[in-house]
Amino acid sequence: MSKSKAVVLLSGGLDSATAAGVAKSEGFELYALTVSYGQRHKAELDAAKRVASMLGVQKHVITSIDLRAFGGSALTSETPVPKGRSSEEMSGGFPITYVPARNTVFLSLALAWAEVLEANDIFVGVNAIDYSGYPDCRPEFIRAFENLANLATKSGVEGKQKFKIHTPLIDLSKSDIIQKGLDLKVDYSKTVTCYDPSDDGEACGQCDSCLIRLKGFADLGIKDAAPYR
Amino acid sequence: MSKSKAVVLLSGGLDSATAAGVAKSEGFELYALTVSYGQRHKAELDAAKRVASMLGVQKHVITSIDLRAFGGSALTSETPVPKGRSSEEMSGGFPITYVPARNTVFLSLALAWAEVLEANDIFVGVNAIDYSGYPDCRPEFIRAFENLANLATKSGVEGKQKFKIHTPLIDLSKSDIIQKGLDLKVDYSKTVTCYDPSDDGEACGQCDSCLIRLKGFADLGIKDAAPYR
Repeated sequence: MSKSKAVVLLSGGLDSATAAGVAKSEGFELYALTVSYGQRHKAELDAAKRVASMLGVQKHVITSIDLRAFGGSALTSETPVPKGRSSEEMSGGFPITYVPARNTVFLSLALAWAEVLEANDIFVGVNAIDYSGYPDCRPEFIRAFENLANLATKSGVEGKQKFKIHTPLIDLSKSDIIQKGLDLKVDYSKTVTCYDPSDDGEACGQCDSCLIRLKGFADLGIKDAAPYR
Repeated sequence: MSKSKAVVLLSGGLDSATAAGVAKSEGFELYALTVSYGQRHKAELDAAKRVASMLGVQKHVITSIDLRAFGGSALTSETPVPKGRSSEEMSGGFPITYVPARNTVFLSLALAWAEVLEANDIFVGVNAIDYSGYPDCRPEFIRAFENLANLATKSGVEGKQKFKIHTPLIDLSKSDIIQKGLDLKVDYSKTVTCYDPSDDGEACGQCDSCLIRLKGFADLGIKDAAPYR
């Protein structure tokens, strides 16, 4: 019997690499989708390619969309990324790195590909704990998208496909995520999580994303093998 | 008092021009979004620019996304567009011009921009009658997207915005749509509906979309002012 196909959203970061690792461990044939949305750095795309290669994906599609045209986020505009914030500062209100409707856009694209592939399963590495400020990382958002997916598509309406959005990390802490990935032999040295990496992928170690990642490794008493500058 | 903002999805075709005309007639300040998704022709983009100009939109953003990377539709691949089909043939099963998850992707992008603009209102010219084969043109899909939108966004979750997806054409026949647009002074000569237009925007008159449009004008006893080759 041939393997079931799954579309995995792959950013090049730690979480999506882990979610993809989970999909692989569950026996899916992986179709990796990376969306380049006007990031200021290409280091993440390079990381996504390394992770896709590491996981032996069947196909890796990188598609571009210019969310900068809409403005509104540090990750897609020229606003400086905040550095060295405490966890209290990070948890206060919405992160300025919030990208409007990002996961809605990403999941829509994953859905389009899943329908063409006749894949029922979409994996996304969203996490409701460390990114509590992002509304589109919450379980109720994911359930609403799953409902939409089955109304939005030819195959869903015809009953040929029943889409499932898998979020294996949604209620895990960062250290739980890292432990899960290590158990699945995910090589985190190939990932780039930093909001402000150098061109060759060295992390800053100071932005919110780096600080959360470093704390996750520290909580496990393990050194992060990714390069920092 | 300043006008409320609305994001209008503008394809350059007859339906979206009419939906945008309705938004304008209701007093909204228009922000037009055109998504170029790997169409084989740029005539639609030129038409969208003409329509945006005609309607006096505040801003017109054209963003590109390559749905061709996923394959799966005559509108985004090299499959020939069917010509000269009867209404029975058109209504039999799904049109091969169906684009997977297209309206989900388009509405997601409109939502991203609406959140940045602090616009509560999104207009889309979907129609459940003439495009009965498209699942993402049905009222239940639109309601599911509206529900998603209010869970997906910072402003929705904070209660600052309550998104509404307006579908003023959803239950109208093509001739009803045309009559509505004519009442609102929409100049249909500027629109391109054809699936296979020439480079300078002349319609083929033979594809499903042209045949439905021409029948709509004929039902009203009016000549379509758009150019045909």
